Amino acid sequence: MGSSEVCLKPVNMSDDDHAVLTLRNLIFDICNQNGGGHGGSAIGMAAIGVALWKYVMRYNPSNPDWFNRDRFVLSNGHCAMFLYALNYLTGYDAWTMDELKGYGSAKENGYTTLAHGHPEIECPGIEVTTGPLGQGIANAVGLAIASKNLAALFNQPGHELVNSRIYCMTGDGCLMEGVALEAIALAGHLQLDNLVLIYDNNGVTCDGPLAWINSEDVNGKMRASGWHVLDVLDGCYDVEAIISSLNHAKCLKGKPTFINIRTVIGLGTSTAGTAKAHHGAFDAESVARSKIAAGQNPSTTHNPSERGLRFFRERKNHGEALEKDWEDLLMRYACEYPEKASDFAFRLRGAKPDLKTLLEHLDSEQFRGMPTRESNGLILEKLWDFSPSLCGGGADLVNSNKFVYSDSDVFHPSVSYKGRYIRHGIREHAMASVSNGIAAFHPGTFLPVTATFFMFYIYAAPGVRMGALSHLPVIHIATHDSFAEGQNGPTHQPVELDSLYRAMPNLTYIRPSDAEEVIGAWMWATASTNSPTMISVARDHVDNIPGTSRSRVAKGAYVLQNDTEADVTLVSCGSSLQHAVRAAKQLREQHSIGCRIVSCPSFDLFDQQRGEYRESVFPLDGKPIISVEEYVATTWARYVTASVGMSSYGYSASNPSNYERFRLDSEGITSRVKEYLAFLDGRNARHMGWRSI
Amino acid sequence: MGSSEVCLKPVNMSDDDHAVLTLRNLIFDICNQNGGGHGGSAIGMAAIGVALWKYVMRYNPSNPDWFNRDRFVLSNGHCAMFLYALNYLTGYDAWTMDELKGYGSAKENGYTTLAHGHPEIECPGIEVTTGPLGQGIANAVGLAIASKNLAALFNQPGHELVNSRIYCMTGDGCLMEGVALEAIALAGHLQLDNLVLIYDNNGVTCDGPLAWINSEDVNGKMRASGWHVLDVLDGCYDVEAIISSLNHAKCLKGKPTFINIRTVIGLGTSTAGTAKAHHGAFDAESVARSKIAAGQNPSTTHNPSERGLRFFRERKNHGEALEKDWEDLLMRYACEYPEKASDFAFRLRGAKPDLKTLLEHLDSEQFRGMPTRESNGLILEKLWDFSPSLCGGGADLVNSNKFVYSDSDVFHPSVSYKGRYIRHGIREHAMASVSNGIAAFHPGTFLPVTATFFMFYIYAAPGVRMGALSHLPVIHIATHDSFAEGQNGPTHQPVELDSLYRAMPNLTYIRPSDAEEVIGAWMWATASTNSPTMISVARDHVDNIPGTSRSRVAKGAYVLQNDTEADVTLVSCGSSLQHAVRAAKQLREQHSIGCRIVSCPSFDLFDQQRGEYRESVFPLDGKPIISVEEYVATTWARYVTASVGMSSYGYSASNPSNYERFRLDSEGITSRVKEYLAFLDGRNARHMGWRSI
Repeated sequence: MGSSEVCLKPVNMSDDDHAVLTLRNLIFDICNQNGGGHGGSAIGMAAIGVALWKYVMRYNPSNPDWFNRDRFVLSNGHCAMFLYALNYLTGYDAWTMDELKGYGSAKENGYTTLAHGHPEIECPGIEVTTGPLGQGIANAVGLAIASKNLAALFNQPGHELVNSRIYCMTGDGCLMEGVALEAIALAGHLQLDNLVLIYDNNGVTCDGPLAWINSEDVNGKMRASGWHVLDVLDGCYDVEAIISSLNHAKCLKGKPTFINIRTVIGLGTSTAGTAKAHHGAFDAESVARSKIAAGQNPSTTHNPSERGLRFFRERKNHGEALEKDWEDLLMRYACEYPEKASDFAFRLRGAKPDLKTLLEHLDSEQFRGMPTRESNGLILEKLWDFSPSLCGGGADLVNSNKFVYSDSDVFHPSVSYKGRYIRHGIREHAMASVSNGIAAFHPGTFLPVTATFFMFYIYAAPGVRMGALSHLPVIHIATHDSFAEGQNGPTHQPVELDSLYRAMPNLTYIRPSDAEEVIGAWMWATASTNSPTMISVARDHVDNIPGTSRSRVAKGAYVLQNDTEADVTLVSCGSSLQHAVRAAKQLREQHSIGCRIVSCPSFDLFDQQRGEYRESVFPLDGKPIISVEEYVATTWARYVTASVGMSSYGYSASNPSNYERFRLDSEGITSRVKEYLAFLDGRNARHMGWRSI
Repeated sequence: MGSSEVCLKPVNMSDDDHAVLTLRNLIFDICNQNGGGHGGSAIGMAAIGVALWKYVMRYNPSNPDWFNRDRFVLSNGHCAMFLYALNYLTGYDAWTMDELKGYGSAKENGYTTLAHGHPEIECPGIEVTTGPLGQGIANAVGLAIASKNLAALFNQPGHELVNSRIYCMTGDGCLMEGVALEAIALAGHLQLDNLVLIYDNNGVTCDGPLAWINSEDVNGKMRASGWHVLDVLDGCYDVEAIISSLNHAKCLKGKPTFINIRTVIGLGTSTAGTAKAHHGAFDAESVARSKIAAGQNPSTTHNPSERGLRFFRERKNHGEALEKDWEDLLMRYACEYPEKASDFAFRLRGAKPDLKTLLEHLDSEQFRGMPTRESNGLILEKLWDFSPSLCGGGADLVNSNKFVYSDSDVFHPSVSYKGRYIRHGIREHAMASVSNGIAAFHPGTFLPVTATFFMFYIYAAPGVRMGALSHLPVIHIATHDSFAEGQNGPTHQPVELDSLYRAMPNLTYIRPSDAEEVIGAWMWATASTNSPTMISVARDHVDNIPGTSRSRVAKGAYVLQNDTEADVTLVSCGSSLQHAVRAAKQLREQHSIGCRIVSCPSFDLFDQQRGEYRESVFPLDGKPIISVEEYVATTWARYVTASVGMSSYGYSASNPSNYERFRLDSEGITSRVKEYLAFLDGRNARHMGWRSI
């Protein structure tokens, strides 16, 4: 197969060949309309697009959200125009030609377009936001888990209510990323035979030939990871071979399927087969040649032929019929299995049992003195039993995370796909990104939970971020959230990671100080429908601190011990709060320094409060306000006049000795506060600027 | 092989068998001395330890830093006591029995111990800090690259000055982590036949049987990744088979070697073969039995037999002889190749050419108006030519990162191992962690550079952190560091990642505003010998801003435009500074609002300045000080009274439209400043607390 020659078929070319050219020509126009974009791979993938959208995938362009559609994930998200062009051609209402013209220009009037540089979940017909490589593959694994789970729960003989298959497109890049390799191993282990990973094997990356950076036996690696492997040798033209492999995959049971399809990047253009085709505009001559071959006028753009449009647009009727059939099936199901149908409807509309009331009435006395990781575990256990949408699991530290589950609840074919507990393995990054995929399956149907040590959420950070950016409700349980984690040492002790999560838009980071506030954290997390929450809990025991309040967690911060005559305010959270409270007692009793205490479990929630409330918590009267936390303190500077915190990594030693070592026990806090007050010498604290003390 | 039965050999057991028991018994004592630790895997690995430390590895206990030693990496760092016990037994001076007794207690007097919960690089005989799973494997790949490179550069026929082999121990966990899978693929691609990865295949993880979370064909996956694979079926007892495979690996050329060794976790104890052996103390009866078998008194602890000690301690003489031989070789080499020997000595003592003078004299006029990614690229090019210790490369975006290299400089056997440019592939995480390994090979010999988009350093964050924690000088070039990165959209646009890196101890994050400050960033980065630097540069063009200063970058922040009568101070950095400067001009000229301007390329460096200087930059006079940056603004609150920044993710649109959309162009800044001044209405800005405006 020549890489730089477009195959000029005769005018009596087949519908498929014509459709491939129609798609390519539209991609040429989208790419060239603003001088470039990631067109090369999209061009090479056109035959795959025709096979999937015309012959294999079940979807309804008239209702992009039809529940039982197959899901398509473009993990190589830079090829966005591939997806946009297909959404237009098959007739998704929102995907007008005007929208396609927004690609690369973002219509300056109001800066809006659906045709973003990378696919974004908010747009109709886009299942997940992709772009950072590897994420889409993990999302697809999550989508496949969701489909398998619902199928196991609800399908009945002759009534296959749920049988969505997941198709994920990947380039060379995703397959090199750790998150994808983790997710691939997990999918193999879970035997997800409703998942197909389609490899656009064009042998070229941004910088040059793939062989410069990778020389592995991809098929061998996939087989070793527990996947079926199929090959298509001519992915540029052989639509039939692609269809055949995709249909073959439907029959392959017990494993996910990897289809390795050889293509040519920028096929038929002057840069075909080279890294130059990866990004940029295509040469006019090649584009004209391709248009002539399809019977299009080469002097026009964005103008697919009637024949081409007709070919794709009949999918609208087809899709409507599919959905109609499914609705009929649902009716029959409802007659035959009324109770199950009601449960199914409940899940589909994103309804939840009344978790709020459960949490409001939970007696926190039973958790008195427990480390928050323990009270959190017990609360999660209650919620899990009560709420079928909760699902997920940890990354092989669940005994430490206190994420209890029963063996019969494990999601695995050796137990059942009905299980909700997912053993993610030692794959923190995939855990987060797979959970995003589960949450993205259908709004509200699943509320995934992840768990590991807080420190190891640095491995998962790209996934957590993608969830926040994509407005996906996932609950992350981060345990062992300080140097008081039991002697593992600085490699396991977060001192700066909170800075990332507290700054991450649309993620709510909550660090509760005791069981009462853990309950409050869950009240927030389970109520959220469009953002993830991270609940940060500790291994160390906690004092019983009177006045903490579950309902006030939603305020972000609140006054715990008021004293209008107080000389200073101490504010803290998590396992530090108890030390601050003890220090306040010492300051009062031994040094006659009056202390107010503020509990501040969540900056994100506090920043959403009205100015008046915020000022009532952190008054602007110039009296010192001092934060106390086992983290690098700079995050607090927006609220306080001084901070007691960390400026280095932690240390491998017992919890009490670390509090002493880093002067974060009550004695350390007390003496640092006294030093600060001596420095201030009665001056207005706000005049002196923020200080790390 | 019974998993719960210790093999009670007769008294006339072989030296090897006795040594294995000696090591196990010491591990039992270390683990039990404070009620627990990660002893189970260490017990299972004892025969591997004997094979490596007694028969295979070349090292000198009397000089842990002997240059041409083999390097050992304990990627499963939780088994730290394995390494500590061997360091003691083979006679490393620092590793006294008292130090071993510090494990799990961290000697409360002064809180110091060498026997940290996980191995730390600062301790003699520890090559790299490990613990977060997968990192060690990537470090080992870096160490192997370093050894290969120096060997290619300096070895001469009959004069093998450098032939360190790298031995890396891994458990099940590391092999599931993305960073390890990336590094494994890279090592295969680079054909690093001086690298041996030893798999402690005990089939058990923290939570339960490995089969619960992984069912891949590990050997098949390694072969597909370009590795030789060897098997040892009885890794608990068969020291000879382990030695044989390790020696066999020395003959296997052209690929790294993976040795899959079956062991039993917690062998010979009541929890053998189960997850319970992973962590915790061992039962007294099993420990006693094992001691009796070795002829030790079961009522004593920390008391290896004379025979056992003699067996290991002869390695001291052996190691001294090895080093002596090498010193002799070095002498002969110096006679034969005096110039090369001088270069070698130069590299080994960590000397560098005079980069400071080069940078001080670089004419920044040549970079006028260039995006900082471009001036940065040109500066790097000059430094690269001048400094042989610079090495490294990017993660497949080097054309965008402007990291220019010549094909002949590529580190790959198809070119040469003399090359310094490493094509890391689309493996950001491994890139950072491999670079740590290169830097760790020998202090100052290498100064690795990495490069990718700033946003994708979120993938690399765990590696960057480990480098900072380990005091390893690596320079990270983060390009495309704002929403002005060319329409890729929010998936590619950092708004919160700076918060992590600015809070990370021992990492210097520098965001220069133009070429002058880029030069200053390199002055800092190349002078640092014990910490990594991240240089954050932009894709957008930059104005020519008079007054920026390379030498003042080291101050972190400095006054760029002074005006003692100014109404406000604007402070900014990176590609935002030009917008702040333009806004200041507007404020002055159109609204008669006097403005001071501060350039603040690095918070880390500024925070190290004396209070007096800091106050001269950010006066405490109550006048408004306003930060301007395209990031979530909370990091600035420690210095300023208000911030113009981001509170959401970015948007897929052109650079200018994004500045307008987010009100970060000069008009947006001007109007936000005016709103703030109107709000203040002449009041002391510090009285009003920090505000996001």
